[in-house]
Amino acid sequence: GDTKGSAKGGDANSKKDGQSSQNGQTRLNVGITQHKLVPEETVTVIDSRCGEKISVYKGSGNDSITQQFDACASWWTQGPDPAFQVICAYCFPDLVFQAELAREMAYTAARFGHVMFPENVYEPALKCAELLIDGVGKDNGSTAIEIALKVAFRKFCVDHETLLEFSEGRDEKKHIVVKVLALRGSYHGDTLGAMEAQAPSPYTGFLQQPWYTGKGLFLDPPTDILFNGAWNLSLPEFFAEIAPEEYGTFSTRDEIFDKSRDTSTLATTYLAYVSKQLQEYSGNTQSAHVGALIIEPVIHGAGGMHMVDPLFQRVLVNECRNRKIPVIFDEVFTGFWCLGVKTHVELLGCKPDIACYATLMTGGMIPLTVTLATDALFDSFSGDPKLQALLHGHSYSAHAMGCATAAKAIEWFKDPETSHNIIPQRGILRELWDEELVQQISCHSAVQRVVVIGTLFALELKVDASNSRYASLYAKSLLQMLREDGIFMRPLGNVVYLMCGPCTSPEICRELLSKLYIRFGEFNRA
Amino acid sequence: GDTKGSAKGGDANSKKDGQSSQNGQTRLNVGITQHKLVPEETVTVIDSRCGEKISVYKGSGNDSITQQFDACASWWTQGPDPAFQVICAYCFPDLVFQAELAREMAYTAARFGHVMFPENVYEPALKCAELLIDGVGKDNGSTAIEIALKVAFRKFCVDHETLLEFSEGRDEKKHIVVKVLALRGSYHGDTLGAMEAQAPSPYTGFLQQPWYTGKGLFLDPPTDILFNGAWNLSLPEFFAEIAPEEYGTFSTRDEIFDKSRDTSTLATTYLAYVSKQLQEYSGNTQSAHVGALIIEPVIHGAGGMHMVDPLFQRVLVNECRNRKIPVIFDEVFTGFWCLGVKTHVELLGCKPDIACYATLMTGGMIPLTVTLATDALFDSFSGDPKLQALLHGHSYSAHAMGCATAAKAIEWFKDPETSHNIIPQRGILRELWDEELVQQISCHSAVQRVVVIGTLFALELKVDASNSRYASLYAKSLLQMLREDGIFMRPLGNVVYLMCGPCTSPEICRELLSKLYIRFGEFNRA
Repeated sequence: GDTKGSAKGGDANSKKDGQSSQNGQTRLNVGITQHKLVPEETVTVIDSRCGEKISVYKGSGNDSITQQFDACASWWTQGPDPAFQVICAYCFPDLVFQAELAREMAYTAARFGHVMFPENVYEPALKCAELLIDGVGKDNGSTAIEIALKVAFRKFCVDHETLLEFSEGRDEKKHIVVKVLALRGSYHGDTLGAMEAQAPSPYTGFLQQPWYTGKGLFLDPPTDILFNGAWNLSLPEFFAEIAPEEYGTFSTRDEIFDKSRDTSTLATTYLAYVSKQLQEYSGNTQSAHVGALIIEPVIHGAGGMHMVDPLFQRVLVNECRNRKIPVIFDEVFTGFWCLGVKTHVELLGCKPDIACYATLMTGGMIPLTVTLATDALFDSFSGDPKLQALLHGHSYSAHAMGCATAAKAIEWFKDPETSHNIIPQRGILRELWDEELVQQISCHSAVQRVVVIGTLFALELKVDASNSRYASLYAKSLLQMLREDGIFMRPLGNVVYLMCGPCTSPEICRELLSKLYIRFGEFNRA
Repeated sequence: GDTKGSAKGGDANSKKDGQSSQNGQTRLNVGITQHKLVPEETVTVIDSRCGEKISVYKGSGNDSITQQFDACASWWTQGPDPAFQVICAYCFPDLVFQAELAREMAYTAARFGHVMFPENVYEPALKCAELLIDGVGKDNGSTAIEIALKVAFRKFCVDHETLLEFSEGRDEKKHIVVKVLALRGSYHGDTLGAMEAQAPSPYTGFLQQPWYTGKGLFLDPPTDILFNGAWNLSLPEFFAEIAPEEYGTFSTRDEIFDKSRDTSTLATTYLAYVSKQLQEYSGNTQSAHVGALIIEPVIHGAGGMHMVDPLFQRVLVNECRNRKIPVIFDEVFTGFWCLGVKTHVELLGCKPDIACYATLMTGGMIPLTVTLATDALFDSFSGDPKLQALLHGHSYSAHAMGCATAAKAIEWFKDPETSHNIIPQRGILRELWDEELVQQISCHSAVQRVVVIGTLFALELKVDASNSRYASLYAKSLLQMLREDGIFMRPLGNVVYLMCGPCTSPEICRELLSKLYIRFGEFNRA
């Protein structure tokens, strides 16, 4: 996800326990936020988390505590804490789930601490893997993505034998370019390998990382936007010649996902476009190859909360699989019911070869990422030479506590008994955002577009060109008002979003949305 | 660290609890190990960890449990579990520390779960940062390294203004090459950015990662080796003209670290070499720059357990700082008393601008990495434009549980009451490996070299050229015998090593070393 901040810690510490920091200048920088714009006195000091809210200290010199709903879902890590509200409403509804996960972690910590994975296996790691394959897998962030790229490229090389001939001689290799196919606006993490798989963006500038070159064939995707009460398709320039009547608008979001669109003229147009791009890229040369496709299914998160037309992604995935280009689903942001479904295989109607999960996998308690691959990809690393193995390592691979927590969280996520937004039998989340209110907001004259699906409600503010960038501070005063209302939000440029957990009740979502609507009105009148 | 393995899980599961896996084909691949060479029946099923040992199930169909000392220190994550042996010898010596860390984690999990860091601060994150700055800081893995590179390059760009002029126009940028200065054989992790900072190696081949190009100026370092009972300097080809009498041998390891070597002819030779390399690289052009130096202090871990001559590293560091090239210490492997000292500032006698820690920082309980930087580097990200901020994020930044655990572990590591190998006042570890036995082993005719320092004992086997590579399986039967003796080891090609935790008793180390010596004799007679 798109993350982090920075803070001078000295003052925060003295606020918290009356003790002055030994080193008043301890300075924490975790990226993403320009620390110069966060003066010491505006740093939020978090005392604890209580369900989906954070308890924060009020103003400087004030020792009372107030609560804010965490509408950033703590960068997508806000899990099913209040899951037990329904069955345990009379004890400590917000804390039961959290406490049980904590107990599971403590048990696993005492039993395993961390143990090594190579040549070994242990129960939590195995159980977690089995649950993933049984559930989402029928289908960490950026290091999971890097592994996925390595795995995909290997399979691609094995499938395209001519490439392998080059892999012996150093000089010849220099002429081989293996790129990734990706959609403009997708985000796959901030490590360099993951960055190379995304189109140039504010994250990839020379000042941020002089090594970035963008090793991708990047396509502009069509997107779906809710505007003036209706869902519309927004087509990139390339498709400008298509007449609107050929695709029209959608009366419901479900229509966008309807598989009957596969037989439309638009589907044919999409396919022709994708084929042409692939042909043009590698058609004229023996040395340029697209070795993997990587997509964020349906929603581009950090890139601005855009809904990519699912028909386009389906066409793209199927065409790549036909050409033996391995397909990666980056589910770090969208996985685990974030978009209301267990697996995007159903939603998109097509399958990946590799899927990456992180953030919510452990119920948001502890970092763990996983890269799932099909047998065919797994086998491309099998062979007599040790060097044919996947030489990628982390000290904390298959961390027992993480695996144990994930195993428990995954079971709870899919069980309507513990995750009370799940519609039994159908296995999907009920609608969390009040549809009438959503329609109203989408009709506001200051709204550029709305995207609403699963746990996400996003709103792009209509601005002039100078404020339409990621670096824009345009929305700052709006979010400041909302913090006073007890809602913690952060902008992506001129896009603001409410993101809840998969277990947040529709009542709470309605309340958040109402407050946003009211403040949005005030903001635009000001 | 150098990590991971692979295993088919189905059989493992049925061994463990008699239950067949739902999916007999769950296949786990975590890299580094060629899974084809680990048949199902040889996968080690770990039941639990007990202090520094792992409890494993014996053979197939046999439900009894045996214990093995984890002599890989679980890829450097083996913490101070038995620290309480001294003060709590009559209860559960191995488990007290682990249990207390587990309790701390459970408390923090229940209090915070995970909360967001941008613009915020909370007690565990602040406390952990303060302890680091107060302790090791006076001086994860690969993502910490990637952040370090981004931070270093930024400072370099700010200090070298002409570079900044290019940062506006895309075309001109293409001609700027900012590289890292690194030593051949160092290892900084398996994400792509970290890989680019290491010289070509088995990890960086085309099949592993087609994007690797090696964005570094890589120098061959002089190394120190224990051989035939004496420490010797092993000089790379470049220094071939230096007569041995100019540098001689060392009678003790301490002599190698003696600062009086700074005035030797060798120091002058080193400096001339480093200056020449830097001059030659960037002297002829405006566009080629060395933007950062990255080193593993003293020991190259995954690269084969080589001890780099500390005089060489000191000369290198000082020369880079003179040239305003930011210096990064990669302490992921060597940090937290792994080499017997709290900070390599003392050991090397020079300071970095950035230091990266991971693995042992939480006592080996939970993944957490940190990138520490000086104020001057921190400030190079400060400015009005949001885009001048460090745009690097992870969902689990400043993870509260990790920070709380690290804060406790760091305090315990340095306290002789809890970490009983610490020599009071001096703050360093006592010698863990029996010196006489080490001498004996170094005199064995089948030994190429020995490296011994802190928690590490490494032994390179004398082999012919075909077996001297990382991919070599030469040591396999030796390690198989040692597993029968209850010692779990893994090779780095023809290098085998014993690595313990900072709290392992010298008695246990002696026992491990004796067993290795005996089996080594048998192995060579076979």
